[in-house]
Amino acid sequence: MSEKLRIIPLGGLNEIGKNITVLEYGKDMIVVDCGLGFPEDDMYGVDLVIPDVTYLVNNQKKLRGFFITHGHEDHIGSLPYVLQAVNAPVHGTPLTNGLIRLKLEEHGLTDAVKLVTHQAGEIVKAGCFQVEFIHVNHSIADAVAFCIHTPVGRIVMTGDFKIDPTSPEGMTDLARLGELGKEGVLAMLCDSTNVERGGYTPSESLVTESIDRQFRGCDKRIIITTFASNMYRIQSILNIARRHGRKVAVTGRSMENILKVASELGYLQVPQDLVVDVSEIKSIAPNRMVIVATGSQGENMSALSRMAFDNHRQVTITALDRVLISASAIPGNEKAIGKIINELYRKGAEVIYDKSEGLHVSGHACQEELKLIHALLKPRFFIPAHGEQRMLRTHEKLALQMGMSPRRIFVADIGQVFELTAKTCKLTGELVPAGKIFVDGFGVGDVGSVVLRDRKHLAQDGMIVVSVVLSAEDGGVVSGPDIVTRGFVYVKDAEDLMEALRYIVCDSLDRCRTKRIKDHAAIKTAIKNDLTAYLFKSVKRNPMILPILTEL
Amino acid sequence: MSEKLRIIPLGGLNEIGKNITVLEYGKDMIVVDCGLGFPEDDMYGVDLVIPDVTYLVNNQKKLRGFFITHGHEDHIGSLPYVLQAVNAPVHGTPLTNGLIRLKLEEHGLTDAVKLVTHQAGEIVKAGCFQVEFIHVNHSIADAVAFCIHTPVGRIVMTGDFKIDPTSPEGMTDLARLGELGKEGVLAMLCDSTNVERGGYTPSESLVTESIDRQFRGCDKRIIITTFASNMYRIQSILNIARRHGRKVAVTGRSMENILKVASELGYLQVPQDLVVDVSEIKSIAPNRMVIVATGSQGENMSALSRMAFDNHRQVTITALDRVLISASAIPGNEKAIGKIINELYRKGAEVIYDKSEGLHVSGHACQEELKLIHALLKPRFFIPAHGEQRMLRTHEKLALQMGMSPRRIFVADIGQVFELTAKTCKLTGELVPAGKIFVDGFGVGDVGSVVLRDRKHLAQDGMIVVSVVLSAEDGGVVSGPDIVTRGFVYVKDAEDLMEALRYIVCDSLDRCRTKRIKDHAAIKTAIKNDLTAYLFKSVKRNPMILPILTEL
Repeated sequence: MSEKLRIIPLGGLNEIGKNITVLEYGKDMIVVDCGLGFPEDDMYGVDLVIPDVTYLVNNQKKLRGFFITHGHEDHIGSLPYVLQAVNAPVHGTPLTNGLIRLKLEEHGLTDAVKLVTHQAGEIVKAGCFQVEFIHVNHSIADAVAFCIHTPVGRIVMTGDFKIDPTSPEGMTDLARLGELGKEGVLAMLCDSTNVERGGYTPSESLVTESIDRQFRGCDKRIIITTFASNMYRIQSILNIARRHGRKVAVTGRSMENILKVASELGYLQVPQDLVVDVSEIKSIAPNRMVIVATGSQGENMSALSRMAFDNHRQVTITALDRVLISASAIPGNEKAIGKIINELYRKGAEVIYDKSEGLHVSGHACQEELKLIHALLKPRFFIPAHGEQRMLRTHEKLALQMGMSPRRIFVADIGQVFELTAKTCKLTGELVPAGKIFVDGFGVGDVGSVVLRDRKHLAQDGMIVVSVVLSAEDGGVVSGPDIVTRGFVYVKDAEDLMEALRYIVCDSLDRCRTKRIKDHAAIKTAIKNDLTAYLFKSVKRNPMILPILTEL
Repeated sequence: MSEKLRIIPLGGLNEIGKNITVLEYGKDMIVVDCGLGFPEDDMYGVDLVIPDVTYLVNNQKKLRGFFITHGHEDHIGSLPYVLQAVNAPVHGTPLTNGLIRLKLEEHGLTDAVKLVTHQAGEIVKAGCFQVEFIHVNHSIADAVAFCIHTPVGRIVMTGDFKIDPTSPEGMTDLARLGELGKEGVLAMLCDSTNVERGGYTPSESLVTESIDRQFRGCDKRIIITTFASNMYRIQSILNIARRHGRKVAVTGRSMENILKVASELGYLQVPQDLVVDVSEIKSIAPNRMVIVATGSQGENMSALSRMAFDNHRQVTITALDRVLISASAIPGNEKAIGKIINELYRKGAEVIYDKSEGLHVSGHACQEELKLIHALLKPRFFIPAHGEQRMLRTHEKLALQMGMSPRRIFVADIGQVFELTAKTCKLTGELVPAGKIFVDGFGVGDVGSVVLRDRKHLAQDGMIVVSVVLSAEDGGVVSGPDIVTRGFVYVKDAEDLMEALRYIVCDSLDRCRTKRIKDHAAIKTAIKNDLTAYLFKSVKRNPMILPILTEL
């Protein structure tokens, strides 16, 4: 047994989103999760971020399958892109696969991909690996952790999880995790999302109580927004609505899609007489109505956003509305959510969003839950996963506090390669391609750092296009210079400035001609430099300058 | 006494930042505060946002003075711009005026402006108004509320405040506020920043204890970042450093400037042997050193950001550093701060930023403090101020809960006009110009919605410039079409696409010629439409398209 197990995170370390990890042994390779990330503020125009899977492409022959922990975007979202580069069966639980199928349909890939469905408790063979599906609690149903039985030992990947003893689908399978701990776990890769928070994540059942409290005695229409994928919460809302004699309408594409999948698979019990179409909303008395809407993160075209800004065809917000925000802001979305709340208030609605109202709980384990998992699994080696550097480091600290030796903890980065034997774990120093591939429209990877740098430049101060036709004979100006700007200044109020710019270009051209400079690149550089210097001095701005020379 | 008092908020309602309020009676007018706002994410390239002061310009003759509550940017930042449009004396406390003077110097306006300094407790006459300076606690020293004694009654404007019984400069002058309440307050305009938070804002003295705890037994270098304007905290840091036998170096321009002003005015006691120049940092043992740095909000070129990203000339972050973030994120800055924390961790530093560590308290009153102020002042009318709609509404709710009649509470907007008599208050329905003026470089107001829309368009998908020279005789193509793109795709990898675009333009031109369309605007529209349709279909993108036609 001279082979070593290789573990290669291609995403999910030092970032939130695009979780994807490779396990490789001899001629076999499996991939756990295949998520996407959302663009940062400075990734202008980028729609999605997917992982670089060059390593999978180069090792296609070894690939035995994808194993998916749950159906959130940051775990399944890249599948439609990655499966076009490398094909292999995809293994998941029923709901996870239902959501993956939705995605594949959107991309016209349903026939090309083999989706294999398993229940928690099953063990799936993939090459030399045996992948055990272990039930965990999360903010989406049917989530699992994996114990991957490898020739060198057991690797536990928790996926995203928390421990909710009163969850409607039963608590995270601590019993099985405890058994594995006794049998011996070689390495654990563990969710670090909430490691900065002390204590325990409260149970989803508290949210149910809080929502019910908002219904009691309420004579307004109730509009509630939450994450479409949180079926328990949606189920609670349905149950509460029925108990209070209200009809439910659902609005927002992702919500409608996911609910369809979830109810077809039996994850959601939707009594036929309870749900009405959005077109019927206006015909039902406000205090007999609940509207479940997308938009809990302030998304631009979401149902709640359209309501707030008066763009929703069926829903007009008035003082007869109570809006419940059953979610907390994912970092970066605070302002977008705040804007929607402000607009709802302006329309006279009552808006309930304060943390103290208990309308949301996280889907991730806090410190005490993490400690419990560490204590149960007692892994020989520990790799904090799923988090930014600050979270990985805090998770390291937590393990140290629990008495783990620092030599057994590895805060790593994507693209690094772990090698494990039954007794050892080390980073090899090898680096495989890993990083961010940008999706913009239909384009995958055709927008890179140069394009983004230009977009940023254009966004800051706009652009100035200078067009001139020069004589091929003597280099004299045949036509122009003409100046067109976009995103620079309001031109009608800046005619003097435009005139000044034209004179400067004429001077640049004259100077080049006197110096017998005929090379277009050199003339363009002269124009750029002269305009840039003038603009910085006169208005302290730096628009992109694009000289276009035509020779006739 | 047929005149009515007019109160006109020109900023600060339904927004955070650019606080400015006009009070007008007969031939007299005063302005309270004159702040700036920072650009939102979609205000591409905008540096600052200042208020529209057309109303002040149109009523210049009435203007008796500016009265400033404290020295934060959102209360003083627009002065250099507004004072170039209308001139009047500026009244403030010593520290506030010291900070205003710094700004005026930067803009070369020191000689043009009359700055008048007052102490809390003073009453200043300005036309028919008497403005009383009342000491309040805030996160900057020398903050005041104003009681404006007008012919129709007393108007109390709290400015930004909290109630800190153990503040080093003494608690908010509740005694005087209580007297005013007994004498009768016609209207109160009250800070709403923290109205969404229950309880009390903890005392600054708790922060002192928390910082001291971080020094005790610490054998690392300590780097601490906080708001430059929070002199108490800076003083605490100096005191603690001395107690623990450490030297202090200060880095970051705003920190250096403000500390200079504060120590000159006696607001900061800086023992000469305690502070060392940044150039000396490397010669002092890490565990004998404290570095006080700008950057608590993740600002791009701040000292802490430069340290984190290895761009600071004198400071290199290592495992021998403990970094204290003595601030909380202003909404919108969470990600920028998070990035810095991640980088500091990567360099091996220990970073202390968790709320539970108590390294920061807010400068604004929470619900219980606000109730206390309402109960003391018992105003006849109440105008929630200084906050977004959600905060203004929550403040309204708080007043209602305290038993105030809804008819006496006014949630208003900027540009609206209040008219008050000794017994009545109403919104007149009149609207005066009010809104956001954008500062971009040296330009004030020359960037408006059209320019911003173009910048946004450019930021999303870049631009395509199409240049063609047409024959004046027959409209035939003399040269081109040439296509240049920026921020669209990486052109070297997209030659086929570029070629396709050229063909499409040729087709558009042919079609126009066949139809005998000679009008340039019409030809440009044809090119734009054809390219837009093709690009949306082929790559699902929508770059800005700029056709440039030259006729020869």
